[in-house]
Amino acid sequence: MLNFNIQIPTRIRFGRGKIEDLGKEILNYGDKVLLVYGGGSIKRSGLYDQVVQIFQDNGITHVELSGVQPNPRISSVRQGVKLCKKHEVHLVLAVGGGSTIDCAKIIAAGAGYDGDPWDFFTRKAKIKYALPVGTVLTLAATGSEMNPSAVISNDDTKQKLGTGSPVLIPRFSILDPEYSFTVPPTQTAAGTVDIMSHIFEQYFSPTPGTFIQERLAEAMLKTCIHFGPIAIAQPGNYEARANLMWTSSLALNGLLSAGKLTDWATHDIEHEISAIYDVTHGLGLAILIPYWMQYILDEQTAPRLAEYARNVWEIEESEDIIAAQAGIKKTAEFFKSMNLASSLSEIGVESKHLAEIAQRATAKRTLGAFKKLEYQDVLNILQTAYGVVAP
Amino acid sequence: MLNFNIQIPTRIRFGRGKIEDLGKEILNYGDKVLLVYGGGSIKRSGLYDQVVQIFQDNGITHVELSGVQPNPRISSVRQGVKLCKKHEVHLVLAVGGGSTIDCAKIIAAGAGYDGDPWDFFTRKAKIKYALPVGTVLTLAATGSEMNPSAVISNDDTKQKLGTGSPVLIPRFSILDPEYSFTVPPTQTAAGTVDIMSHIFEQYFSPTPGTFIQERLAEAMLKTCIHFGPIAIAQPGNYEARANLMWTSSLALNGLLSAGKLTDWATHDIEHEISAIYDVTHGLGLAILIPYWMQYILDEQTAPRLAEYARNVWEIEESEDIIAAQAGIKKTAEFFKSMNLASSLSEIGVESKHLAEIAQRATAKRTLGAFKKLEYQDVLNILQTAYGVVAP
Repeated sequence: MLNFNIQIPTRIRFGRGKIEDLGKEILNYGDKVLLVYGGGSIKRSGLYDQVVQIFQDNGITHVELSGVQPNPRISSVRQGVKLCKKHEVHLVLAVGGGSTIDCAKIIAAGAGYDGDPWDFFTRKAKIKYALPVGTVLTLAATGSEMNPSAVISNDDTKQKLGTGSPVLIPRFSILDPEYSFTVPPTQTAAGTVDIMSHIFEQYFSPTPGTFIQERLAEAMLKTCIHFGPIAIAQPGNYEARANLMWTSSLALNGLLSAGKLTDWATHDIEHEISAIYDVTHGLGLAILIPYWMQYILDEQTAPRLAEYARNVWEIEESEDIIAAQAGIKKTAEFFKSMNLASSLSEIGVESKHLAEIAQRATAKRTLGAFKKLEYQDVLNILQTAYGVVAP
Repeated sequence: MLNFNIQIPTRIRFGRGKIEDLGKEILNYGDKVLLVYGGGSIKRSGLYDQVVQIFQDNGITHVELSGVQPNPRISSVRQGVKLCKKHEVHLVLAVGGGSTIDCAKIIAAGAGYDGDPWDFFTRKAKIKYALPVGTVLTLAATGSEMNPSAVISNDDTKQKLGTGSPVLIPRFSILDPEYSFTVPPTQTAAGTVDIMSHIFEQYFSPTPGTFIQERLAEAMLKTCIHFGPIAIAQPGNYEARANLMWTSSLALNGLLSAGKLTDWATHDIEHEISAIYDVTHGLGLAILIPYWMQYILDEQTAPRLAEYARNVWEIEESEDIIAAQAGIKKTAEFFKSMNLASSLSEIGVESKHLAEIAQRATAKRTLGAFKKLEYQDVLNILQTAYGVVAP
C-alpha cells in the first residue's frame, strides 16, 4: 500500500425528500445562487419548480444557466462565469447529473479567476479558489457529487479534458434516488457502466498490498451488477436506484484509489472518442472495457483479472488466464444484456478516425498504470473494438 | 435503505513517515497543544521524542496529560480539562489508541463547558462546542480517529458510557501503520475483534435494501480475518498492519451505518462487564459475540447470518439455519485461533455479577435492533458466555 492523504468533506443528504434541506444548506454560504441545469427534464419532473420555490421560501435570489449538455462545453462554463461575476453569486448549485455538476465546478473556479477557464485544462492556470458548489443529483453515474474532479469539452479544439482541485469538492450534495426514477433505460445502463468503469480504473492497479481497497471495489462492482438490470427493468425501484446512486458517489470519492496507483487508460481513450463523436461516456466505455481487458491480459495482469473473475463473477477456475478470460466474457455479456452496443462501428465511429484517436490519446504521455499503453497498443484496442480490423 | 446524512471531514494522513505533516496540521489551529497519551509505550518507541521535537521545530508549545488508561476514566478527562483551561490550549492532540483519543475528545469538549464533563454522558449537557482534536494513531481498533464518538468510564459510579458530537470528529489523523508494529499479539487480536465487532453491530440490522452497505461490511470483515492472524504472527508486516489500520477507521466512520438501523447490543453488554471488571474491550467482545449470534439465531435472523456465513466464510450450504450455525462456529474458532478467551469465567468475571450486569445493561432500555433484548435475554447470553449455566 502506498502512502495517501484523503479527506471527503461533502455533506451528503441522502434519501426521499431530502430536498427539504436545500435552503438551509445554501444559506450556510450566502443567498445569491447560480442555478445550473441541463435540458428540460428537471422542468418536466417538477424538480425545477420545487427548487425555485425553496429559493423563494428562504429569501434566496438566483440567476440561471440552463442547457448544459452531456459532455459539457467550455462555452457553457464561460457563460456561467459571466453570470457569477455580474451578479456576485455566493454559491453555484448544480441540479442534474455529472455533466451539470462538472460544468458548475468549473464555473465556480472561473468566477475566481481573471483569465479564461479553459486555462485550467491546458495547465496554464491552477485552480486555487472557487465559489462553493452544491449539488442536487438526478443521475447515478459520475460520482462528481462527492469529488474534486471535472471533465469539460472544447468544441473549437476538439478536446475533452479533466482537471480537479480540493476547492471544487461540493460542500453539500442532495441525493434523492427518486429523482433518478425517470432516467431512461439506456442512460441507466450507461450510468451503471460509468460507475463500474471508475471502479475498474482503480481496481486494476500494479500496487500490491491493497487488500481492503480491492474488497471494497468488488463490493461496489457486485452492487452495480445486481442493481443495474433491476433499475432498467423497474425504473421506479427505490432500492435499486438508491444502491446505484450511493455506489456512484462511493466509487469515485477517493476511497478506492487511496494507497494505490490507478489506471485510467480506458477513460483517456474514451475521452478522445467523445471529443470527436460526442458519444455518451458510459456507452463508449462499455464498448472499450472488455477489449481493453482482453488486450492487456498477460501473465503479469492475469492474477488480478482472475481475482476479479472469481470474486465478482464467482468463476470457479484455478488457472488464472482461463479464469480471467471467463471474467472478461462475463463483463462483455453483462454490458450486452443491458442493450448496450459492443463495437465502435455500431455507434457511428468511423475507421478513418481510429489512428487519430490513438495518436491524440497518447500524444502527451504513455497511458495506464496497471498496463502501460503506447500508440500502437491503443490503436490495436480501437481496431478490435471497432468490430473489424481496420486497414 | 433509510434516509441518512453523512460527512467525514477528518483529514487522513496515512503511511510511513506521515508524522512529518504533524506540525503543519497543528498550526492550522494554533500553537498551544495539550498532548494526551497513555503509558510509556510511546516513550519506549521514540514516538514521544519525535512529537516533542516537531513541536519545537514548529514553535508549538505544549502541556501534557499522560497515564490515560484503557477504558479511560472521567478523572483523566477532568485533569485534561483543567490543563486546557489554565493554559488556554488551541488543540488537543491524542497520541495513542482509541482510549487516548476518546479521552482527548471529551477533554476538548470539557474545555468549552463550565460544568463537569460527566454531564455529557448523563445527558445533563449536550456537546455543542469543542477544541479541535488531532490524533496520531498507534493501534488499529476503535475507529475513534475518524468519528464523532467517545466512551468514558466512571470509577465512582461504575459506569462506562458513550457520547458523541460532530464537533468531536478529529480534524486530522496521522495513521502510520509502523507505529502499530510494537502492539503485542493479544492486543493485536483484541483490536482485530474490536474492528470486527463494529462491523457486526452495523451489518446485523433489520433494515432491508442496504445491499452496498452489506457488501462493504463483508469486504472489511474479510480484511480482518485475512490480516489479523498475519499481524499476530509477524508484528512487523507492514501490509497486514496497514490493512488493519485503514479498516479500523473505515469500519466506524459512518460508511457502514449509513441508511440503516444498527444493533450495538453486544457493545452495551460488554460495557457493563468492563465497568465492573475493566477487561480489554476487544477481549470481552470476542467472548460475547459468538454467544450473542447463537442466542439471536431464529427464523427471522437466519437469512442475514447465513449471508454472513456464505459471503465471509465461504460456507456452501443452502439451508439458512445450518449455514448460519456454521458461520457462528467459524467466528468462535477464529477468535480462539488468535488465542483469545472464549468464556467469561476464564477472564475472572464472577457468576454472582451476571444478573447485575444484565440488569444494568437493560435498566434504561431494550437493547439491540437486529434482535431486541430484554433483561432475561441478556442474562441468558451472559450465562452461556460464562461457561456454565449459573444458578
